[in-house]
Amino acid sequence: MRALPVEGMRDYLPEEMALRDELINKIVKTYKENGFRRISTPAVESIENLDNSDGGENLKLIYRIAKRGEKLDKAVASGDPSQLCDLGLRYDLTLPLARYYTAHQNDLPVPFKCIQVDRVYRAERPQKGRMREFIQCDIDILGSESVDCEAELMSVTAEALQNIGINSFKIIVNHRAVIRAVILHCGFAEEQVNSVCITIDKLDKIGVEGVREELLAKEFSAEATEKLMTLLGLKEITLEQLAEYGAEEPAKELFGVIEAARTIADGKYEIVFDITLVRGQGYYTGTVFEISCDEFGGTVAGGGRYDGLIGRFSGKDVPAVGFSIGFERIFSVLSDRGAKTDGRKKAAVLYNEGSFAAAYTYAKALHSEYDVTLVIAKKKIGKQFGQLEQQGFDAAVVFDNDKEWKALGNKE
Amino acid sequence: MRALPVEGMRDYLPEEMALRDELINKIVKTYKENGFRRISTPAVESIENLDNSDGGENLKLIYRIAKRGEKLDKAVASGDPSQLCDLGLRYDLTLPLARYYTAHQNDLPVPFKCIQVDRVYRAERPQKGRMREFIQCDIDILGSESVDCEAELMSVTAEALQNIGINSFKIIVNHRAVIRAVILHCGFAEEQVNSVCITIDKLDKIGVEGVREELLAKEFSAEATEKLMTLLGLKEITLEQLAEYGAEEPAKELFGVIEAARTIADGKYEIVFDITLVRGQGYYTGTVFEISCDEFGGTVAGGGRYDGLIGRFSGKDVPAVGFSIGFERIFSVLSDRGAKTDGRKKAAVLYNEGSFAAAYTYAKALHSEYDVTLVIAKKKIGKQFGQLEQQGFDAAVVFDNDKEWKALGNKE
Repeated sequence: MRALPVEGMRDYLPEEMALRDELINKIVKTYKENGFRRISTPAVESIENLDNSDGGENLKLIYRIAKRGEKLDKAVASGDPSQLCDLGLRYDLTLPLARYYTAHQNDLPVPFKCIQVDRVYRAERPQKGRMREFIQCDIDILGSESVDCEAELMSVTAEALQNIGINSFKIIVNHRAVIRAVILHCGFAEEQVNSVCITIDKLDKIGVEGVREELLAKEFSAEATEKLMTLLGLKEITLEQLAEYGAEEPAKELFGVIEAARTIADGKYEIVFDITLVRGQGYYTGTVFEISCDEFGGTVAGGGRYDGLIGRFSGKDVPAVGFSIGFERIFSVLSDRGAKTDGRKKAAVLYNEGSFAAAYTYAKALHSEYDVTLVIAKKKIGKQFGQLEQQGFDAAVVFDNDKEWKALGNKE
Repeated sequence: MRALPVEGMRDYLPEEMALRDELINKIVKTYKENGFRRISTPAVESIENLDNSDGGENLKLIYRIAKRGEKLDKAVASGDPSQLCDLGLRYDLTLPLARYYTAHQNDLPVPFKCIQVDRVYRAERPQKGRMREFIQCDIDILGSESVDCEAELMSVTAEALQNIGINSFKIIVNHRAVIRAVILHCGFAEEQVNSVCITIDKLDKIGVEGVREELLAKEFSAEATEKLMTLLGLKEITLEQLAEYGAEEPAKELFGVIEAARTIADGKYEIVFDITLVRGQGYYTGTVFEISCDEFGGTVAGGGRYDGLIGRFSGKDVPAVGFSIGFERIFSVLSDRGAKTDGRKKAAVLYNEGSFAAAYTYAKALHSEYDVTLVIAKKKIGKQFGQLEQQGFDAAVVFDNDKEWKALGNKE
């Protein structure tokens, strides 16, 4: 039998888990204080829902669960691999949320502000920092068209990051309608918009010249390409310039959001417009945003408006917008840095065999101040104290002996 | 697309999730105060580990995950269904823990006292109260042969139940070696022990006469059956009687555990020996225990010693014992009873469009006392207040208007 966890997934040691719990608790506390409420959905969804969810590249990464019993036998006999599975593991928390809202909207307030902190699964190629099972921390607002939702999600997510000690980041925003209007205004055809977006998305990697070359290689109009390049070459794009490029209306809305978010940020973090921010997920329809943080190696949160997704279930579109913190990258960096939890103090009560019940009752009285572990006393108490100190205990006492506390280590 | 969750799995509304979170937090807090530390393993295990885990009936209920890419194509072409899957969802938290301990024991203290609160999966036939995705709350002590571990797990689990408001329960214990010694002493053959156990396990359903009939129907010795029935017919079985039935040594140990646990229980709950307690899981080797609670319709927790399971990974047996709270039954009963959380107070701040940023900053100052939801003010404020009250808000204020709190409802 294999002792290691399956490839791309991880076990967590107690110290790691304490840090994970503390970070998650702080994030959830921030969300709750801001009026969001936690919900939960199964990690398993019907394969039909997953396959039809417009999740872009993620659809290729779904873990598929085989049918059971006779249904499986039939599927195998048919020789058709597409018939083998009826369930799958969710690749994000947005699709299950859209399904959830459709099923339960009569029991939910309008707008509905919710928290999801849960495991998701993607059969990624194994590589550093890419996990196949990982936790996402999402907040979403469903049922409101107001762009205040966007400002709210940005501000609450930023606050959550600040509350776990991340202060140096910037929020990058764009709007699908802005980029679309600009592309069309430059002279690209309707059916070229997606392809142009995919190229623009690469700007931070291949540069302005790289984008120009790729667009021309795709045999798009040279004139349209030049017009677009003029805009992309600008250091900062203003509302006026976007108006000149035919995107006045959506840009006005977007810049309004940015201004509200900036007022709330009060100079503590930046909010910047970036026309090259595309974000892959097929289901985004409006604003898209990311939080970028150099000391964490890039994007630590992402989201956007997805007004069409719920309609796929209910037949009736419901405005929706969400922001998701990529918990694993944050945990991984903090963990590598040796971040410690500020949890409760730990004490060990050493007892001799035969006096367990009395030692247990004695230990219980200490719970108000300490997490208390009962351990059988060894002959060499001094050595045992040393081991307990190494294990991170703050204090130890031998029950039924001197009953005097021995403070361990120099923790404070 | 399907709006309902997959069969046998559940979505949780915000009120339900708040109750679940609160119950879990109280259980975990109890565990931590008693020196147990939380760990985490993936929900996905290799199918090889799951299939070879001696998990009894649960092995038939494993959700199996199909291979991906070329490996799947090959498996389908082979026509052999057993080749289709390489992964599966865990059916409990004990098997992953055994794997975990083997992989990480050099980084873990001896004994290792750990908490696992996590989702597990079983493809059960759908029926009331049987979920296909559910949460277990486990504590385990690994690396210690001391029977104090048994007393500790019973006492800590009992404390966790008390801390979530469950006070009327009894702990039932047995020991595999006791029942085995008794069966052999009655004159059954070695190879009949398991079959006799399976029948004895049914005593609470079919009664003493039913057990007698079944044993005779299995064509076991009439003499052995009568001898066993004499013992099973007793109202309470004493240590002396067990000694007469050849089980003196294991019974002494077990009654020592019961005595220690009773001292700790201090009359607040019962601990009783029950020779008919078998528990299905194939991997138990010593003490087995359950907590039974009439108002929750039966068993709410179960566990036992499984000294052989870790050896399946490491080749070297490690003593191990665990106790698991069946969270879903407890949640389901408390939820049906309308149990409320004692969480933070909720306030709504109503604002007018255009003043979002100012309202956000205003709301933030209230977080010390309330979870605060920002909502766009409607024209009919009175009606809106009524809706907020129905949604469970404790207070509401219209920002930029009177800025006076309106307390809602009669919550206290």
